[in-house]
Amino acid sequence: MTRPLISLLTDFGARDPSAAIMRGTILGIAPDVEIIDISHEVRKFAIRDGALLLWCALPYLPVGIHVAVVDPGVGTARRPIALQTARGDTLVGPDNGLLLGPVERLGGASDAVELRDTRFRLPAVSTSFHGRDIFAPAAAHLALGVTLEAFGPRVEPASLAPSPLPAPAIGDGVLETSAIYVDTFGNVKLSALAEDLTRALGPLALGVSLSITTAAAAFSIPWLRTFGETEVGAPLLYPDSYGRLCLAVNQGHAADRLGITEDDPVAIGRSPSRPRDRDRAAGGTPRDAGTS
Amino acid sequence: MTRPLISLLTDFGARDPSAAIMRGTILGIAPDVEIIDISHEVRKFAIRDGALLLWCALPYLPVGIHVAVVDPGVGTARRPIALQTARGDTLVGPDNGLLLGPVERLGGASDAVELRDTRFRLPAVSTSFHGRDIFAPAAAHLALGVTLEAFGPRVEPASLAPSPLPAPAIGDGVLETSAIYVDTFGNVKLSALAEDLTRALGPLALGVSLSITTAAAAFSIPWLRTFGETEVGAPLLYPDSYGRLCLAVNQGHAADRLGITEDDPVAIGRSPSRPRDRDRAAGGTPRDAGTS
Amino acid sequence: MTRPLISLLTDFGARDPSAAIMRGTILGIAPDVEIIDISHEVRKFAIRDGALLLWCALPYLPVGIHVAVVDPGVGTARRPIALQTARGDTLVGPDNGLLLGPVERLGGASDAVELRDTRFRLPAVSTSFHGRDIFAPAAAHLALGVTLEAFGPRVEPASLAPSPLPAPAIGDGVLETSAIYVDTFGNVKLSALAEDLTRALGPLALGVSLSITTAAAAFSIPWLRTFGETEVGAPLLYPDSYGRLCLAVNQGHAADRLGITEDDPVAIGRSPSRPRDRDRAAGGTPRDAGTS
Repeated sequence: MTRPLISLLTDFGARDPSAAIMRGTILGIAPDVEIIDISHEVRKFAIRDGALLLWCALPYLPVGIHVAVVDPGVGTARRPIALQTARGDTLVGPDNGLLLGPVERLGGASDAVELRDTRFRLPAVSTSFHGRDIFAPAAAHLALGVTLEAFGPRVEPASLAPSPLPAPAIGDGVLETSAIYVDTFGNVKLSALAEDLTRALGPLALGVSLSITTAAAAFSIPWLRTFGETEVGAPLLYPDSYGRLCLAVNQGHAADRLGITEDDPVAIGRSPSRPRDRDRAAGGTPRDAGTS
Repeated sequence: MTRPLISLLTDFGARDPSAAIMRGTILGIAPDVEIIDISHEVRKFAIRDGALLLWCALPYLPVGIHVAVVDPGVGTARRPIALQTARGDTLVGPDNGLLLGPVERLGGASDAVELRDTRFRLPAVSTSFHGRDIFAPAAAHLALGVTLEAFGPRVEPASLAPSPLPAPAIGDGVLETSAIYVDTFGNVKLSALAEDLTRALGPLALGVSLSITTAAAAFSIPWLRTFGETEVGAPLLYPDSYGRLCLAVNQGHAADRLGITEDDPVAIGRSPSRPRDRDRAAGGTPRDAGTS
Repeated sequence: MTRPLISLLTDFGARDPSAAIMRGTILGIAPDVEIIDISHEVRKFAIRDGALLLWCALPYLPVGIHVAVVDPGVGTARRPIALQTARGDTLVGPDNGLLLGPVERLGGASDAVELRDTRFRLPAVSTSFHGRDIFAPAAAHLALGVTLEAFGPRVEPASLAPSPLPAPAIGDGVLETSAIYVDTFGNVKLSALAEDLTRALGPLALGVSLSITTAAAAFSIPWLRTFGETEVGAPLLYPDSYGRLCLAVNQGHAADRLGITEDDPVAIGRSPSRPRDRDRAAGGTPRDAGTS
C-alpha cells in the first residue's frame, strides 16, 4: 500500500453515525490513511461473530492496522489492547477474545500492549464510546508510525481473554461441531474446517452422502464443492471459500430450511451404505431436507 | 479521475465481510484505486435488480471499471466476462445477463472477453466466491493497465446470456408494462420509460388522470412531476430521476399502499373523461388508492 | 486534511444506488476529495433524526463540506442552501431545519446562501433527486474552491426553517424532556443534555435513584456513567458520549424494555427518599423495569 491501511469492524450499525465518527477521528489525526469497513452490522454484543468475520477477512486485506469493536464491557475494567502479528499487522480492540482467532490467521501475536498512554487518546475519554476515544486514535497514531511500545505496558499473552471460537471434537468416524454463524444468505458456518472432517471420516468423494445430526433432527445430505452442483432448493455440506464447513441450500436459506440456529450442536458422519435405510438410521428426516 | 475508479455491486450483504474482502483484494493488487460501493444489499440472487441498479448508477459514475456480482450460478459453467463500453468503461462479472442492460446505457459493448487467464486470478480459486478470486483481481489488473485481450478469448456478443430487464408493449392508447423494482422508499419502478408512455398515449398534460390496471385492482392516479405536487399520502405516476415510469405515494410506501409486488403486470391508459365513471370503467377502485 | 473532505448523510438507504450516485457525481467533478458516509439509513423523511445524527457526528469530523439530504419536500418550493460555520465547514442541504442544530455545534452560521447558480448543478435537474443534481455538485464545486457567494443570493438567517430538535423544559426539581431517537442498540436519546438535568435537579451523585415518568408508566432507575456499571438487563440513565441524556439497558434494548417510542414525553425527578414508597409515588412500576 502507498497509503497506510486501517480496517474497521464494529457492531455499531449502519444507521447510527458511530462508524463515521471513528472514520472522522482517524482522518483528523492521520489524513492520508485508506480505510476499509469490514462490517458495522455485526450482531450486537456478538464477540464470536466479530471474531469469525475478522478470521475470514484479514488474510485477504493488505497488511495494516485492524480495529475491531464489539465491546459489551465498554467502560468497565477490561483492557484496551493492541496486538502485533507475525505478518506485520496490528490489531486494536478490547481484550475480550475478539482479536485472538483472527491473530492466529496472520501468524500469531508477536507482541501485545495495553493502550494506556493518554497522548494517543482523544482529550476526553467517555465511558461508552471507546471506539472513538481510544481505539480509532490509537489506530491513527500507529498509522503515523508511533511504535507499539509507546502506547503502554506489555501484556502477557497468557493473560488475554480467550477466543470465543469453539474447537470441534474430531472422533473416529464422527465430527462433533456446532453452528457458529448464519450468513446473510442463510448459509450455516460450523466451528470445524474441511480438514477436520477429513481427519474424522477419512478422504471424502464428491457427492458422498453424509449424515447430519442436530439437537432437533437428523438427515442425510451430499458433500459437494458448491451450491450449483445440486438442484435449486436442495441442501448440501461444502467447504466454504475459507475452508470452513458450511451447510447450505442452493439458492435457499439453509438455517431456516434445516431448522438450525447458532450454537446448535451438529454431528457429522458417513451415511449408512444402503440408501433406503440411511434416513431411518440417522434418526429421521426433517420435513423438507432432501437427500439428493 | 486522477486515481483509477472501480465500482462494486453485489448481493453479499452489509453484515458479511465479503464486500470488504473484494475491496481488500483489489487494494492488495492496485493500491491506488478509488473504490465506490454502489450497493451490497441487492436482493439475494436477483439478477434483474442488480441490472437495474447498475442501469441507474453507471451514467453518473466517472468512467471506470465496474464489478457486479449477483451470481447464483457461481462455481458452475457460466462464464466470467469483461465487457468494454463505448464510453470507455469496463464491466466485469458473470455472464448471466447482469451486465447487458447497463452496458447499453454506456453506449453498448465494443468488445467482450472471457476471464480465463490464471495470472489475473487469485492463486487458489474457490467454487463459491468468484467475486474475491476472479472478479476483484480482474478489476484490479484492469486498473493497473492490463489490456482486455490479455484476460482470455473474445466472446461473441450474440452468445451472451440475455438481459433480465423486460421490454414494455407499447400499444395504441395503452402501455403494458410491469413492476420491476420496489425501492427503499416503496416507490414501484416499472419496466417502461416515460417516453414509452408518451408513445402509447400521446403527449400528457401534468395532472392528467391515468387509469392503472394491475392483476388485482384498477384505479386512477394523476401524472405528476414529483411527490410533493400532491398531498401527503396520495398516489401518483411520475417519471423518476432516470426517466423511468414510477408509481409513488407522497411520503408513503406505494408498493404496500397500492398492493403491487415485483413482476406484477401494470397496464396504463388515459382515464375515461367523466370522473364519476372512470373508476368503474377501469374495473374498480382499491380500498385506499385515492384518485386525487 | 490533504484532500478536501466531503461527508454525506441521507435517508436514501443502503440497498438503492442513490448514495453511490452522489459519490460518483462528486468524484466526476472533484476527483481528489475524500468522502465519508455518515449514514444513508436515516429513517425515511425523518428530518429530526438526520439533524441529531449530524449534531453527534460533525464535531468529530475534520473541517469540510457536509451534505445532508432528508428532503420530503424535494421538487417543491423549499430552498436548497449552503451554510458557512464559524469552524470553517460548509453545510449543504434543503432549507427544512435539517442543518440548523448541527451548525450550532460548529460555532453557528456565519453566512448562508441559496444554491441557485446553474453552473454548479448538473445540466438537467430532476424534480425528485436534488441530492444528485444540486447538492452533490455544489459540494464538489465548494471542494474545488468556488466561494459561497458564487452559488446564489444571501439568505437571511431569520428566514431559515427552524430546527426540528426540541428544547427541554428545565423546572425546579423536574426536567421535562422527550425521546427523540432510538439508536440501533435500542438506547433512547432524549432532547436534553446532562447539564440540563443538573440545572433542574442540582448535582447528582453516581448511583442516585431518579424517577422517570412517561405517558404510559413511571419507574425509578439509577444515574450511572455507563451500561457496564449495572447488571446485564438492568436499566439506567446516563450521559451518552456526546453529553446527551440517554435511557439504556445493559446489553438490552431500552426502548422495547421500557416501552418508550420516539416523541414520548419523559419527565425526570429525584426518587422519593424512602425506597419502599418511591415507585408508588412516581405513579406505578412497569412490568419489567427494575429499580436496581
